Amino acid sequence: MARFRPAPVAVLALLAVIIPVAAYASSGPVSGGDDITTILVALAVILLGAKLGGSLASRLKQPAVLGELLFGVLLGNLALVGLRWTEGFSQLGALGTLAQLGVILLLFQIGLEANLADMMRVGLSALLVAMLGVIGPFLLGWGVGIWFYPHAPIYMHLFLGAILSATSVGITARVLKDLGRLDTDEAHVILGAAVIDDILGLVVLAVVSGMIRGAESGSSVSSAAVLWLIIKAVLFLGGAILAGRYVYPWLFRVADYLRVRGMLLISALAVCFLASFVAAKAGLAPIVGAFAAGLVLDDAYFRDPKRHGRERLEELLEPLAFFLVPVFFVKMGMDVDLSAFATGGVIWFALVLTLAAILGKQLSALGVVTRKKGSISRWIVGFGMIPRGEVGLIFASIGATLSVAGEAVVSPAIYSAVVVMVMLTTLVTPALLAWSFRRHLS
Amino acid sequence: MARFRPAPVAVLALLAVIIPVAAYASSGPVSGGDDITTILVALAVILLGAKLGGSLASRLKQPAVLGELLFGVLLGNLALVGLRWTEGFSQLGALGTLAQLGVILLLFQIGLEANLADMMRVGLSALLVAMLGVIGPFLLGWGVGIWFYPHAPIYMHLFLGAILSATSVGITARVLKDLGRLDTDEAHVILGAAVIDDILGLVVLAVVSGMIRGAESGSSVSSAAVLWLIIKAVLFLGGAILAGRYVYPWLFRVADYLRVRGMLLISALAVCFLASFVAAKAGLAPIVGAFAAGLVLDDAYFRDPKRHGRERLEELLEPLAFFLVPVFFVKMGMDVDLSAFATGGVIWFALVLTLAAILGKQLSALGVVTRKKGSISRWIVGFGMIPRGEVGLIFASIGATLSVAGEAVVSPAIYSAVVVMVMLTTLVTPALLAWSFRRHLS
Repeated sequence: MARFRPAPVAVLALLAVIIPVAAYASSGPVSGGDDITTILVALAVILLGAKLGGSLASRLKQPAVLGELLFGVLLGNLALVGLRWTEGFSQLGALGTLAQLGVILLLFQIGLEANLADMMRVGLSALLVAMLGVIGPFLLGWGVGIWFYPHAPIYMHLFLGAILSATSVGITARVLKDLGRLDTDEAHVILGAAVIDDILGLVVLAVVSGMIRGAESGSSVSSAAVLWLIIKAVLFLGGAILAGRYVYPWLFRVADYLRVRGMLLISALAVCFLASFVAAKAGLAPIVGAFAAGLVLDDAYFRDPKRHGRERLEELLEPLAFFLVPVFFVKMGMDVDLSAFATGGVIWFALVLTLAAILGKQLSALGVVTRKKGSISRWIVGFGMIPRGEVGLIFASIGATLSVAGEAVVSPAIYSAVVVMVMLTTLVTPALLAWSFRRHLS
Repeated sequence: MARFRPAPVAVLALLAVIIPVAAYASSGPVSGGDDITTILVALAVILLGAKLGGSLASRLKQPAVLGELLFGVLLGNLALVGLRWTEGFSQLGALGTLAQLGVILLLFQIGLEANLADMMRVGLSALLVAMLGVIGPFLLGWGVGIWFYPHAPIYMHLFLGAILSATSVGITARVLKDLGRLDTDEAHVILGAAVIDDILGLVVLAVVSGMIRGAESGSSVSSAAVLWLIIKAVLFLGGAILAGRYVYPWLFRVADYLRVRGMLLISALAVCFLASFVAAKAGLAPIVGAFAAGLVLDDAYFRDPKRHGRERLEELLEPLAFFLVPVFFVKMGMDVDLSAFATGGVIWFALVLTLAAILGKQLSALGVVTRKKGSISRWIVGFGMIPRGEVGLIFASIGATLSVAGEAVVSPAIYSAVVVMVMLTTLVTPALLAWSFRRHLS
């Protein structure tokens, strides 16, 4: 490893901050609007800062993504120390879109690198990990609800369980990529489990919120509706695989025929975006669609011996990922509002909830089945399932719109605690995974 | 050239349209919001359609950009034939941002391919072309104003002149790239003139709107303010060149030291975005900043014999451009509202205005000075200066906010005519340029 010399790093840090500050200073505060000027400076700062943070993290033997997240936290909380010039950044809608496209591309890349056979080989483990990883946090979340809010209706306790159940695989996937560990059995189990987990989380949310709506209106949650959810989700995954087998080769033949420059990349991107779109319409996370598209594209198309396009496609996707992926992780960091930790009353509840979220997912590691003892590290799988990310937040915001006996199922205080839980699970995962990989391999 | 077989092309066209239609049909109309689902499907449709349009245009010996524009026109006007499912696309703010980033990247790429010495060699021509190209349309616009609105105040006539003065180089640059003619003297003259033109247009706008505001308030336009505008613009360009000479090599040395993957691309993008930002803050078009950044980066950094990064950087930028540049041109086409042509009263005025815009810029071709007669085609330069693009629209919208004696300087009718003029100058340029290059070379 290179000797760590802080001087040039500090210089780049200064550059990343001073240039825009000077430019802004001469032109007053940032306006709220989504104008291109603010986006340009935001992107420049985010890209330089992400690389700087990533570089520092790598030198400290941490995954680069941790540096990007922490740079984001810094950028998003400058207002706490009185620096207000970046406040406009978090209101940029376009930045959120670029971030979303970034994580979609990341999962597409990861899908391309993975292949169906490897995933299938650990399919049983993935299924068990996903199921235990939903049951564990659900029960613990329920328990924490009873402990802290003993007089609240049972629906509130159940909903807390539901919020804790869904894994958000973006962070873990990125850490595995940063560490160069995507081609391990642990990675296959985690990625497979994350896909199944997303479907299960959807079902849990539907059942619990159906029960709550039913409790208010007197109706009951229909098992037909739940069944339809599962069918839709499975149809999507099945459809992706079929599309891969039959439609993709044909689409790419047409694309070849057009012989326009950049056609390979454009067709692949279109497939990725359409799959993400269909996944979202089926109620799944868009990244699940992107991952499935990558997985299937790799299997159905690039394994054709007449083709040598996969390496080329990965090469073409990489610059896009260099640009967009850090935007996602910096933006995730920016959304961490440090002042949320200062709200005294909630902090204990938040910490216990976080503990429940982390411990609950450790149960999932028991789902790993292998013939050879010790060949798959349960620690790695357990840690990899920890991050909750935006799925938990989406669940919580749905809960905020539901009410039982005139009270919101997710009160503002609980929402803050969920936000803290999401942040902490996001921030602890990279270090835990890096540590467990080092431990497993030594 | 490949034999033109329409069948597979039609198939791709169907795919690009049917998949999303089917998906939408099952889920009701598109909501107005900027949600990721709509963006994903919009991007997939735009990318596939752009490539399809580009491929068709190439087969008809037209620049690919013409196909992208026309596909955009089609996509933006489906509502006229009763298809409303893409109506939500034009309300996507994020799509506008991606489009802006696309044209910024395009000009950055073009700046990287050009070099300062070539530009300087035709500097006098570029200066004269720019000046004549502002004077010609200004006088003709003024005349058209007197002809059609003889009783309107002189300020309105002057403002019409100002609207016609500024060239928008995005389309021309892209056509030159599509035709592989970026390394011709014509291209250098056009690109140089476009940069100077942008500064002159800024001055004309400032003077004319200053006169209008002065006429209302009784004050007069201060020559100090106009001088300050010019100084700011020149300082920006000078600053970019100095930054290139001194700051970039140093920045890239730091970047090298960090040795993170993707650092070359990220530093270059940051430089491009910051330059575009500073240009915008100086009142210039962001693309002028991006072009200057590319030009200077090429000269100051990659001509260093110890470096071999330019080809590598161009290779890394290309996938980003494949993705984002078509978004800009399709979006430009989408903004063409065909129903504007149907408003009877305005159409004659709009057509005469367009003619004035085109003929006015032909005067600029006389500014080309060469030692060898015929070595630079004046037709190509004249045609290349035709497009007005968003600059004309921005000027017109400023005019709509100014009023003389209680009446807006740019009435809604005039605004529509300007919109038609911008569309027509945009749509005729690719074909005219392709034709004039063929004629010049044969």
